[in-house]
Amino acid sequence: MDIELKEGERLDDLQCGGLKIIQNPRLFSFGIDAVLLANFARIKPGDIVADLGTGSGVIPLLLSCKTAASKIYGLEIQHEMADMAQRSVRLNDLESRVDIIEGDIRKAGDIIGMSLVDAVISNPPYRKAGSGHVSPSDARAIATYELECTLDDVIKAASTLLKNKGRFYMIQRPARLVDAICGMRKAGIEPKRLRMVQPFADKKPTMFLIESIKGAQPHMDIMPPLVIYDAKGIYTEEIYRIYGMEVPDSGG
Amino acid sequence: MDIELKEGERLDDLQCGGLKIIQNPRLFSFGIDAVLLANFARIKPGDIVADLGTGSGVIPLLLSCKTAASKIYGLEIQHEMADMAQRSVRLNDLESRVDIIEGDIRKAGDIIGMSLVDAVISNPPYRKAGSGHVSPSDARAIATYELECTLDDVIKAASTLLKNKGRFYMIQRPARLVDAICGMRKAGIEPKRLRMVQPFADKKPTMFLIESIKGAQPHMDIMPPLVIYDAKGIYTEEIYRIYGMEVPDSGG
Repeated sequence: MDIELKEGERLDDLQCGGLKIIQNPRLFSFGIDAVLLANFARIKPGDIVADLGTGSGVIPLLLSCKTAASKIYGLEIQHEMADMAQRSVRLNDLESRVDIIEGDIRKAGDIIGMSLVDAVISNPPYRKAGSGHVSPSDARAIATYELECTLDDVIKAASTLLKNKGRFYMIQRPARLVDAICGMRKAGIEPKRLRMVQPFADKKPTMFLIESIKGAQPHMDIMPPLVIYDAKGIYTEEIYRIYGMEVPDSGG
Repeated sequence: MDIELKEGERLDDLQCGGLKIIQNPRLFSFGIDAVLLANFARIKPGDIVADLGTGSGVIPLLLSCKTAASKIYGLEIQHEMADMAQRSVRLNDLESRVDIIEGDIRKAGDIIGMSLVDAVISNPPYRKAGSGHVSPSDARAIATYELECTLDDVIKAASTLLKNKGRFYMIQRPARLVDAICGMRKAGIEPKRLRMVQPFADKKPTMFLIESIKGAQPHMDIMPPLVIYDAKGIYTEEIYRIYGMEVPDSGG
């Protein structure tokens, strides 16, 4: 496959089925949040999946390897990012399963189709617009701050896309927990499963993972925390497993 | 103090300032949830406090010992429980600071006063009415199931009682997290602080503690989990501290 790398771009290994991803560290590189979210989502064989704000396409690429989803859409408003994600899809020969679309999350229903999707995923901007000093032309800022879309926009888009009993997966900062939970219930996607992500077992969570289900009855299941590092400051066994890395010998 | 114990009642030590509490194990005995909740609440010197559904009065008694609240109301709809709590207050000579009132949470504003309270506390029934086979005449059932009041009734009563910027503290089961959070925001008491209560560091939470503030801006702070037992199955240091017990020598 002859895929051109543009200036500033590099090719990274996704540690899953030999997949490669094109990234431009100047714009945005995916972090542990994308990996944890892709691992948290329960995708069934044959599912139609949509990733809202897909960036470099890391979540569609990971899901193409980890699941038997039949179709994975990735929607991205930034031209440079969408272009990079499309080249990664071609590079991995995934055009039949992964479709990266340059477009606005607020028009996701028109672009992808209403009530057609089994699972929506989103790693949306964490910070409210105006909560920091950012340049609105900066790709990193658009991925971090709610400049192009708000949390509520993402939730409404998910509700529009999902079939009845379809699932929505998101990762967010603790500060936005109430906005996320109340926005989801209001949009008819009931929050059903919550998992705190903590650097250490006895520390505050820095993120949370949430699953909500369209049209479901209220009943929340809170899972054990997902802990990143063990007491010795190395990854926990669960994180090694999620990253597809071998658990190092504890030396014990 | 000459306080009569009725049939089936016993006198227990509250492990705080020599306080005693009258309990009737046939009706209801307080559990760790009440102790954790009383410890979670931030009560300032001079605060007026109201405990909604006070039962045997355990939370007002603990707060009388642990805080410098000027007045602590305990509202309880069940005559037998309110009577027992009132006798515990007299037994401890706390009539000037603790006022147990037999009455309905849904009328709390009329009974205690509107927008007058600095902090409301409630350890409400965990289970929805109809979610189990119970006799509505059973005191234990009234404390466990939403027979006499719902979670929303408790939240609305808290909102009515609280001053602007007044605080509401609750403990609940994970299954009700969304009901609690969305009910609070809807009632104008913004959820601000959340703490999961877990039997062990790597297990699911069995309860959560939540603080919400009337009229506050959205921004949730999720605390490190409160873990009950350490790996060896004995209490964690934090639990020993909350119970006011000495931490046993680890033998290490």
